[in-house]
Amino acid sequence: MFEAVELGRKLDKKDYKKQASYYRDKLLFAQFALVNAGAPVYILLEGVDNTCKGEVVNLLNQWLDTRGLEVTGFGPKTDEEAERPRFWRYWRTFPARGSFGLFYGSWYTGELIKRTLEKQSKVDFDSHMLRINRLESMLAQDGALILKFWLHTSKAYQKSKFKELKKDKHGRWQVSELDKALHERYSDYIKAAERAVRLTDQPEAPWIVVESEDDYFRNIMVAKTILQAFENRLAEKKEDVESTKSASAKKPPGDFPTETVLNQIDLSAELSREEYETRLELAQTRLNSLSWRAYHQGVSTVMLFEGWDAAGKGGAIRRIMEAIDARIARVISIAAPTDEEKAHHYLWRFWRHVPRAGRATIYDRSWYGRVLVERVEGYASIDEWRRAYSEINDFEEQLCNHGNVLLKFWLHIDQEEQLSRFEERKATPRKRYKITDEDWRNREKWPAYEQAAHEMIMRTSTDYAPWTLVPANSKRHARVTVLEAVCDRLERALQEKRG
Amino acid sequence: MFEAVELGRKLDKKDYKKQASYYRDKLLFAQFALVNAGAPVYILLEGVDNTCKGEVVNLLNQWLDTRGLEVTGFGPKTDEEAERPRFWRYWRTFPARGSFGLFYGSWYTGELIKRTLEKQSKVDFDSHMLRINRLESMLAQDGALILKFWLHTSKAYQKSKFKELKKDKHGRWQVSELDKALHERYSDYIKAAERAVRLTDQPEAPWIVVESEDDYFRNIMVAKTILQAFENRLAEKKEDVESTKSASAKKPPGDFPTETVLNQIDLSAELSREEYETRLELAQTRLNSLSWRAYHQGVSTVMLFEGWDAAGKGGAIRRIMEAIDARIARVISIAAPTDEEKAHHYLWRFWRHVPRAGRATIYDRSWYGRVLVERVEGYASIDEWRRAYSEINDFEEQLCNHGNVLLKFWLHIDQEEQLSRFEERKATPRKRYKITDEDWRNREKWPAYEQAAHEMIMRTSTDYAPWTLVPANSKRHARVTVLEAVCDRLERALQEKRG
Repeated sequence: MFEAVELGRKLDKKDYKKQASYYRDKLLFAQFALVNAGAPVYILLEGVDNTCKGEVVNLLNQWLDTRGLEVTGFGPKTDEEAERPRFWRYWRTFPARGSFGLFYGSWYTGELIKRTLEKQSKVDFDSHMLRINRLESMLAQDGALILKFWLHTSKAYQKSKFKELKKDKHGRWQVSELDKALHERYSDYIKAAERAVRLTDQPEAPWIVVESEDDYFRNIMVAKTILQAFENRLAEKKEDVESTKSASAKKPPGDFPTETVLNQIDLSAELSREEYETRLELAQTRLNSLSWRAYHQGVSTVMLFEGWDAAGKGGAIRRIMEAIDARIARVISIAAPTDEEKAHHYLWRFWRHVPRAGRATIYDRSWYGRVLVERVEGYASIDEWRRAYSEINDFEEQLCNHGNVLLKFWLHIDQEEQLSRFEERKATPRKRYKITDEDWRNREKWPAYEQAAHEMIMRTSTDYAPWTLVPANSKRHARVTVLEAVCDRLERALQEKRG
Repeated sequence: MFEAVELGRKLDKKDYKKQASYYRDKLLFAQFALVNAGAPVYILLEGVDNTCKGEVVNLLNQWLDTRGLEVTGFGPKTDEEAERPRFWRYWRTFPARGSFGLFYGSWYTGELIKRTLEKQSKVDFDSHMLRINRLESMLAQDGALILKFWLHTSKAYQKSKFKELKKDKHGRWQVSELDKALHERYSDYIKAAERAVRLTDQPEAPWIVVESEDDYFRNIMVAKTILQAFENRLAEKKEDVESTKSASAKKPPGDFPTETVLNQIDLSAELSREEYETRLELAQTRLNSLSWRAYHQGVSTVMLFEGWDAAGKGGAIRRIMEAIDARIARVISIAAPTDEEKAHHYLWRFWRHVPRAGRATIYDRSWYGRVLVERVEGYASIDEWRRAYSEINDFEEQLCNHGNVLLKFWLHIDQEEQLSRFEERKATPRKRYKITDEDWRNREKWPAYEQAAHEMIMRTSTDYAPWTLVPANSKRHARVTVLEAVCDRLERALQEKRG
């Protein structure tokens, strides 16, 4: 989930300076307004150690008014704390209404460490996360504004920071034995954190994952997010925020990186017709035999396809269906919902097509519509699409826990490629039906869709149901990639089932 | 928790007939209005088998309009269902907007059986309950109205029903081997159900526990509750409910039992001065020694006292404090919160006084103020006090899981006794400060407080933190009862800790 933000986004010094002064002013205004509105504010900073949590604390400490700002860190429990129920140490530190609590580490940290180093069971970990959910909901229902940051840095970056600190006379003591042990188990720690984020991301206490290796970029991202949350809260409260509102109309000065996980996809891959045909046939033969084995072993498969209009979803799906007997697989095309579907929860229409043992269902577009088209077009409210991430993760976990093989494909093309395909469709009579005015309208909203897709991929790439990002400027390449991925995944599942 | 509703409430036939026709009309009106409002409605019926779920289903089936009313029962999983993720079978049955789902058993039933007969672990059970919470929240957020009934009947009643059915040629097949096995483990089943209710009672999907042995009483209670919920929802939606609203202004005809758990308390107990003094001294000596043992073993104690004004809370607490060294115990009197307390979540002021290892905290009034005075006086909103039951149960569970000994006392007197104590206070100069105009005002709200206390006791009597109801018309009797209860409980805890 987190590696999706490793995009190398940076901000140059000149832009940083401009934006820093802009956000600093606005944050201060919003802070005063929130103090008046009487909300207790919780800002949690989590991430691997010795990389940047301290920097962010210092930054906010400088930028915000320190009256009513309380910075709290949690070390090992004191005697006093050990003698009371687990949450007592946190209750002591909760900010009062109109105060700001800045948490350097939090109620998550200890559990992440236990899961990483002490082999705490998944069930125990989960049950603690659900307790935290209840705690945070309770605080939010009482009016608290809660923001939880995961400041993401890579293992290599953490290592380089350790080195830097070791060279520094004053920094040396900062790298503890615990930090080193956790660094060794970096990927386990990240896995635990991803699980925590997934289980405790609630609209009333959201997680924000921030790419954090570039100081400038990270600082502005954090400031921007906090400001946004403050302003939303103030707008809800209909408090007098004229001073900040009028100012927020103008955009912050300077450039800000807009890379997404999508524009990291290398679209240059090509495939000769000859190689295409050889690999396609091979993969289809394999898939045919695998699908029958899956049928006999009772292994069900769910595949879903998302991607830009004209990215080639239909073509890829057809190549799969050529390989699988129609009696054991079917394609569900998701267009506008039926009346009956509209009368149910949005997930109902997908639940009804979950395959029986040994069968496959292929969704041509899927439940991700909730966080793509419904988000961008405003069919779903902000609360609705925000909570959909965790609803979707829950749904997919239930599929996977039941033993379904789940494959999620994002077929990616760039804007030029889309344009040329649209024009080809317009020019080719038998393809003309495929192109509508709506496609042209959606095309204009490319940046909004891109942002939505980026967040979707980040929030719903789980260990049990990762996204497969498919470069699809070349149709041949895309089709073969998809087919081979299906074969590989299915083969692994059958082996696991047998083994 | 459930046994608190075993009050033997009955309704006679004449009153039943009147009320039945009243509620039948109104339910039908409300149903039509809800269909127009487009909410999907879920009515879940749970309880031990072969007692009355079927009767309630039949009743509602008769009373409500059957268009859009779907009755669903869940037997063993079909092949189709077993081949899909666990919740698939439930998703198939979910009602559409404007439809009513009447569930004879539900997503709870299977888990209750597993926990009772298959030794399912607490952790697994809990994690399933939390999944259900997420499911129900999700449906509620989507607009569903969810009501969950626990139709409570005693073991003896179930047995008598089995006998009746066995005599009946057509009823015989209804008592299955599973029913019999569950009947054998009645108390385990009830414990599991109590735990389920505690973990899944949410304002958006509340549980209603209904005393169900008298058909007439139970039917009216169910109808009344459903009607209330429908009308609340319609009022929220500001739909046109003039037809139902004007009608609901008049009270239903006939009498309806108003017994509570409080008026089941036998207040006749007395104690001679002599016996009082002997037992008091004995208990105080015991408590003194136990409190020091607790100190040395690090066992903490939390006691709380609730009850009517002038019920003798202060006197009982003083007798305890005479026995315990002041260095290891303290009394926290809960009056109006301080500014600082007001600026935090309502539980914060209680968390701060949770005792260290080996110490005791005695709360003279407590967090239960949320569901008593704050509820009755309207200081807390309906949502706030309703969700407080589960917040409080959570809080107390954390105390108990940490090893705290928790004792909760309700000191009960009747209205006459209160009056004579008020008058004595007024007449005795050194007691006059104890009585205020507010006490007289509260006295007028006796029925509302009684209802609140009844619900409080029912919803927060948990296996780990049960209420002790103390008859307190006799002060001597009450004080000795309290002291001996503290001693017994503490002694047991110390033995368990050692053993």
